Amino acid sequence: MKSFMSEVFPFKRTPIVHSITNYVTVNDCANIILAAGGSPIMADDLAEVEEIVSISEALVINIGTLNERTIRSMFAAARKANDLGIPVILDPVGAGASHLRNETALQLLREVRFAVIRGNISEMKFLANGSSTTKGVDADVADKVTAETLDSVVHFAKEFAGATGSIIAITGSLDIIASSEKAYVVENGHPLMSRVTGTGCMLSAVVGSFLGGNPDTPLESTAAAVIAMGLCGELAYEDLATYGEGTSTFKMRIIDRMSLLDSALLEKGAKLEIR
Amino acid sequence: MKSFMSEVFPFKRTPIVHSITNYVTVNDCANIILAAGGSPIMADDLAEVEEIVSISEALVINIGTLNERTIRSMFAAARKANDLGIPVILDPVGAGASHLRNETALQLLREVRFAVIRGNISEMKFLANGSSTTKGVDADVADKVTAETLDSVVHFAKEFAGATGSIIAITGSLDIIASSEKAYVVENGHPLMSRVTGTGCMLSAVVGSFLGGNPDTPLESTAAAVIAMGLCGELAYEDLATYGEGTSTFKMRIIDRMSLLDSALLEKGAKLEIR
Amino acid sequence: MKSFMSEVFPFKRTPIVHSITNYVTVNDCANIILAAGGSPIMADDLAEVEEIVSISEALVINIGTLNERTIRSMFAAARKANDLGIPVILDPVGAGASHLRNETALQLLREVRFAVIRGNISEMKFLANGSSTTKGVDADVADKVTAETLDSVVHFAKEFAGATGSIIAITGSLDIIASSEKAYVVENGHPLMSRVTGTGCMLSAVVGSFLGGNPDTPLESTAAAVIAMGLCGELAYEDLATYGEGTSTFKMRIIDRMSLLDSALLEKGAKLEIR
Repeated sequence: MKSFMSEVFPFKRTPIVHSITNYVTVNDCANIILAAGGSPIMADDLAEVEEIVSISEALVINIGTLNERTIRSMFAAARKANDLGIPVILDPVGAGASHLRNETALQLLREVRFAVIRGNISEMKFLANGSSTTKGVDADVADKVTAETLDSVVHFAKEFAGATGSIIAITGSLDIIASSEKAYVVENGHPLMSRVTGTGCMLSAVVGSFLGGNPDTPLESTAAAVIAMGLCGELAYEDLATYGEGTSTFKMRIIDRMSLLDSALLEKGAKLEIR
Repeated sequence: MKSFMSEVFPFKRTPIVHSITNYVTVNDCANIILAAGGSPIMADDLAEVEEIVSISEALVINIGTLNERTIRSMFAAARKANDLGIPVILDPVGAGASHLRNETALQLLREVRFAVIRGNISEMKFLANGSSTTKGVDADVADKVTAETLDSVVHFAKEFAGATGSIIAITGSLDIIASSEKAYVVENGHPLMSRVTGTGCMLSAVVGSFLGGNPDTPLESTAAAVIAMGLCGELAYEDLATYGEGTSTFKMRIIDRMSLLDSALLEKGAKLEIR
Repeated sequence: MKSFMSEVFPFKRTPIVHSITNYVTVNDCANIILAAGGSPIMADDLAEVEEIVSISEALVINIGTLNERTIRSMFAAARKANDLGIPVILDPVGAGASHLRNETALQLLREVRFAVIRGNISEMKFLANGSSTTKGVDADVADKVTAETLDSVVHFAKEFAGATGSIIAITGSLDIIASSEKAYVVENGHPLMSRVTGTGCMLSAVVGSFLGGNPDTPLESTAAAVIAMGLCGELAYEDLATYGEGTSTFKMRIIDRMSLLDSALLEKGAKLEIR
């Protein structure tokens, strides 16, 4: 059942991953793309994004610190990627928290065909329903995915995948990766990841790398990326010294672990089931 | 005397800390807010800052890489925060070094009610006097706070606090945190912190977290935040290996130490006196 | 032969290094400037760059995430630096990859007198010839500098130095630093550096620091900076634990090593020859 992981990782060639992203976590995103086996390029001026995306294997759009200037670039790059058949990944950071984020995210959904949409449950509910309990950039407690609510969240993810034609990745303490017909539930990861800024952004960057490296199997590539990120979080936590090492060392070791990951480790560490 | 520290830390609830800040140190600021127990959100587009600050418990304005676009957002967010009674922290990075910084900082002072203003002595002198010896973003040597000049700097800080109605935090090798009537002098910290970019920005982000967590005691919250940052610097320095570890490991360990800090450690490590 | 290194490092005074750079690697650039003995200031608004560059000892222009707003600032700052005799360093990140980068880089070359131009071989070929095989921000494999092609690359570098009046630094697995009459070939460095984002940007920031500290010997200062960066890569690699440490720890240790570097270590570790 897990064998798809060694099909997709490591990549056969180095995908160039074009990201239009936020200024908070951009360095970690670039470094984790390199660690995963991709080649990052962060270009966001309207005058060049169409050219840059044309030489890329994937485009990641992250609205974490969107602004008037970069929003225009997001649409231009995404349309060009759609024209060229290059997979586009959406990370709707903070969707639900402001009209600007809401309207941008919903307009992107209407005008762009996304290969993958990855967010926390609050963001994804907003995208699907146009309303939300999002407060800031973290998932609302009321939205927490638990063993009890898992079935309904899987159902929601499949429906949303059907409605959008995208792979839907809802990540948190449990991760759901779904097409309209099939869902993987992943239990990899560690709670400390929520105390590092940008673990979600980094995951979207990793998803972009996996899609860029394997454009033909988006569901499996996304699931493998989610497993890889969670597993790196687990291994990074195990690597922490018992004395004096906290969240910043932890962040570094997540990227370290991505740079050391191989398919054997990925298959061995995966905690997933099909729904 | 030190008992106020366990009153304010750890926070009773997680404050959302909205920052409009520079692109150099933004990641470290977000991570240290999380490490201190806050939830960071960095939004700087004029179209959303008023909404974002409305769901926040504190606003930090840092002019480190200000530009025409973000200056407008700073004013809009700060006015909204004032309307809503949300504490606003000013970090006047490089005030004195260019007309743009000078005019922006002075206009902010005129139009915004700041809960706390935190800067080095050169920046603070500029704000108070409209003239300065600021060269770049580091304090001028001529301005250095020493045992000999401490009394006059404490006097200056109390006067400036009286004139602005803000808590004044002047930080360097000695830190002064003052209201118009009372000042704390803090000796925590380590000289190596001046060889890491953004320790000042990070401190302002930590002050924002402490104020967001304790809006009713701004003087004590700010003093505790300054002590916390200095103490994390000391502990981080002690954590350095004697071989091969330099300023970048040191930066990481400062954030690590903030993520591991508790009130007992804070009280035990505090080096402060009242003036 | 190596004795020029202790002439230029450590610096006699702390140079302020003004950078107009990309948002991906800006924090690492600021930290490595501090580590090398400089004082970084990242200001990019048109309203202040001329003033900021006037108080600086060097200006580094990096087009990694150029945009309409910052391009204007680059030209204004560079012209002012030329007027004042302050050395300007160009890092033409991704030149060859988009019309915006191409036109900006070529116009900068026409209108600005650069003390140093530092890039990979693909970027430098584009600058010299107006055409290139650049794909993204990494050097094209077809352009790789090897023992076989070294002579012709040295010839190219000297010619380009003659045509521009700049020191030309072409970096990769072998580094060539050339004036029109003399070239140093440097073999320091480690292949893992290519799996960290921004080692090129950081090198340009270090070159800016060395030039700012030693404006009268641009060839030797640039060569020493290139050696310093490569050597820090080698030492950082040796510092890596055999278990669990990857590319992110490696990045941290490169900056660590820069902060610990002294002239004895630099002379002892230098691998260079004159061509």
